[in-house]
Amino acid sequence: MSLQILSVPSPPRSGPAAARVVGNALDAACATRVGTPPVARGEIDVVLDLRHAGRRALTLRYERFGDATLPTVFVAGGISADRHVAASAALPGRGWWDAQCGDGKALDPRRHSVLAFDWLGADGCLDVPLDPADQADAIAALLDALRVERLQAFIGCSYGAMVGLQFAAAHSDRLARLVAISGCHRSHPHASAWRALQRRAVALGALQCDDSHGLALARQLAILSYRTPAEFDRRFEAATVVGDRVRVGAEDYLDHCGATFANRFAPTAFVRLSESIDLQALNPESIRVPVTVVAVADDRLVPVSDAVELAERLRGDTRLHILQSLYGHDAFLKEGPAISAILSEALAGQEVAA
Amino acid sequence: MSLQILSVPSPPRSGPAAARVVGNALDAACATRVGTPPVARGEIDVVLDLRHAGRRALTLRYERFGDATLPTVFVAGGISADRHVAASAALPGRGWWDAQCGDGKALDPRRHSVLAFDWLGADGCLDVPLDPADQADAIAALLDALRVERLQAFIGCSYGAMVGLQFAAAHSDRLARLVAISGCHRSHPHASAWRALQRRAVALGALQCDDSHGLALARQLAILSYRTPAEFDRRFEAATVVGDRVRVGAEDYLDHCGATFANRFAPTAFVRLSESIDLQALNPESIRVPVTVVAVADDRLVPVSDAVELAERLRGDTRLHILQSLYGHDAFLKEGPAISAILSEALAGQEVAA
Repeated sequence: MSLQILSVPSPPRSGPAAARVVGNALDAACATRVGTPPVARGEIDVVLDLRHAGRRALTLRYERFGDATLPTVFVAGGISADRHVAASAALPGRGWWDAQCGDGKALDPRRHSVLAFDWLGADGCLDVPLDPADQADAIAALLDALRVERLQAFIGCSYGAMVGLQFAAAHSDRLARLVAISGCHRSHPHASAWRALQRRAVALGALQCDDSHGLALARQLAILSYRTPAEFDRRFEAATVVGDRVRVGAEDYLDHCGATFANRFAPTAFVRLSESIDLQALNPESIRVPVTVVAVADDRLVPVSDAVELAERLRGDTRLHILQSLYGHDAFLKEGPAISAILSEALAGQEVAA
Repeated sequence: MSLQILSVPSPPRSGPAAARVVGNALDAACATRVGTPPVARGEIDVVLDLRHAGRRALTLRYERFGDATLPTVFVAGGISADRHVAASAALPGRGWWDAQCGDGKALDPRRHSVLAFDWLGADGCLDVPLDPADQADAIAALLDALRVERLQAFIGCSYGAMVGLQFAAAHSDRLARLVAISGCHRSHPHASAWRALQRRAVALGALQCDDSHGLALARQLAILSYRTPAEFDRRFEAATVVGDRVRVGAEDYLDHCGATFANRFAPTAFVRLSESIDLQALNPESIRVPVTVVAVADDRLVPVSDAVELAERLRGDTRLHILQSLYGHDAFLKEGPAISAILSEALAGQEVAA
């Protein structure tokens, strides 16, 4: 893969009061095979007023898959997702949502310009409380820089759904429809407690020289909240005595999850984004754009009751889908056809100018 | 409170092959006010063949509330419960099941001799894998030493229910009825994974000088599995930014739970008893005594489906109660009247000679 680095001028459009784009956007249009949709990566320097940490100079890192003249769909996943939504000819590494994005899929880069960014804080350099509303402002600033007036849709999963709700509340003129999958207007106090203990695991690990242990444990705890007992029952055997210790069936899997995550994520990024989920507090009545709410019956982090309440309190055209899934909170990653059908329905008839 | 130390002879009855009582039982009949039921504490030295650790000399520490000539009810709670089931005139400290045991309660020391012991491993001195079946053998050895031929009932909650099932399978001639509350013939693989991560928190803490941090975190994680999201939703507020950190509503409560537990429990005891839960693996068809199975609809550790399977596979007279409770796995500690009614029903018509 070869990259062609382009310099594009700073956009003239004025952003929201809280966001100011500074300096030049650095746009890397990736070398694209003839006939395949273009892919571009870039960085935008902005100044944002953060809710809990004041004015900050920040860098937004985005990836755009599909021609910029097509209607733009913004996609946001969980706190561990990033700007690389799907593999492309130019950037063939696995994306976090290859199941939904690519030729012939619900998010088809021949029909949409699929835009995503790395969360504020994901690089581990921003060690302050981050509000989901800050992320929504950052996305608005990114759209300013890329001269995207309005989104065909904002599709958010988990934390991305929370941020999508914030975006719909604060920047309602900039999107035609929000799809909020497995994320609501608040964090449930039990889920918040669960995450608080994950952060304590990181803190416990940080007392040692090697803090990857704490981060791995935190991730393992998170995995237990993402999946369901029914799935574990199918996958894992009973505990056995190994040496003079008891080892349970899921431990090999959890070891793998912990090590992989600790290798690719900074502890500070995890802690600050985990905290950010817990800061979600939004009045659904403030949202008047169309929203598709998607909940999963056995989601142990986001109870269906919260999704139902959200749908009832939204003030625009609202659709509610409740999925049955063995994968609980992770259904958006695992239930390809069901999610695809919902996305296709949500995007149909939402054609807007790019 | 004054204690009167008595020496009672080693019992002549031969125990099961695996258990041998050695030395003298040390029985402390506690000073009792006239008219109040007697209380006795004692220690019994035994030799047991442990499933995963071979032959071991062990000390069994018991407490008996009610006259020894009354029908004996053995009571066993979770891994953090101990021999002090209820407060008495002679031992007025709070017991772990005061709600059910005392004058006029379901377990009335004027009608029953309520017997309990400290789990094998609870003193932190036995650092080996402990099988729930080992605990059942230890209880049989204790009954030998105390010359209790047969129990009117074995009442077990959580881990105690697992041990009760083992006792019913291996020592069926020694009990008239088992009441198994929130504990089954196996550990669910998801609950086992949850506990395995609690043990990892202890291990992470042990890498430091002060391992109370790890144990406190483990307990906090356990608490989340004992209680329900619905309870947390009622009790705790949304997260707030405190200083430059996010603090969730449940953290004060979790701090308290962690500190209290770390003060009174040894890390080794916690790890080995936690492991022991995961070693539960029993064929319900091997049990032919009457069993009352009690499950809680929103128990996040012991799914109702496992309790239903247990009830279906037991071979004796079986009753199944499914409770609705805001307190999930902890219902046996919190749902006083409902549990009391079940215990009273189970004990009625189960009169046996002491």
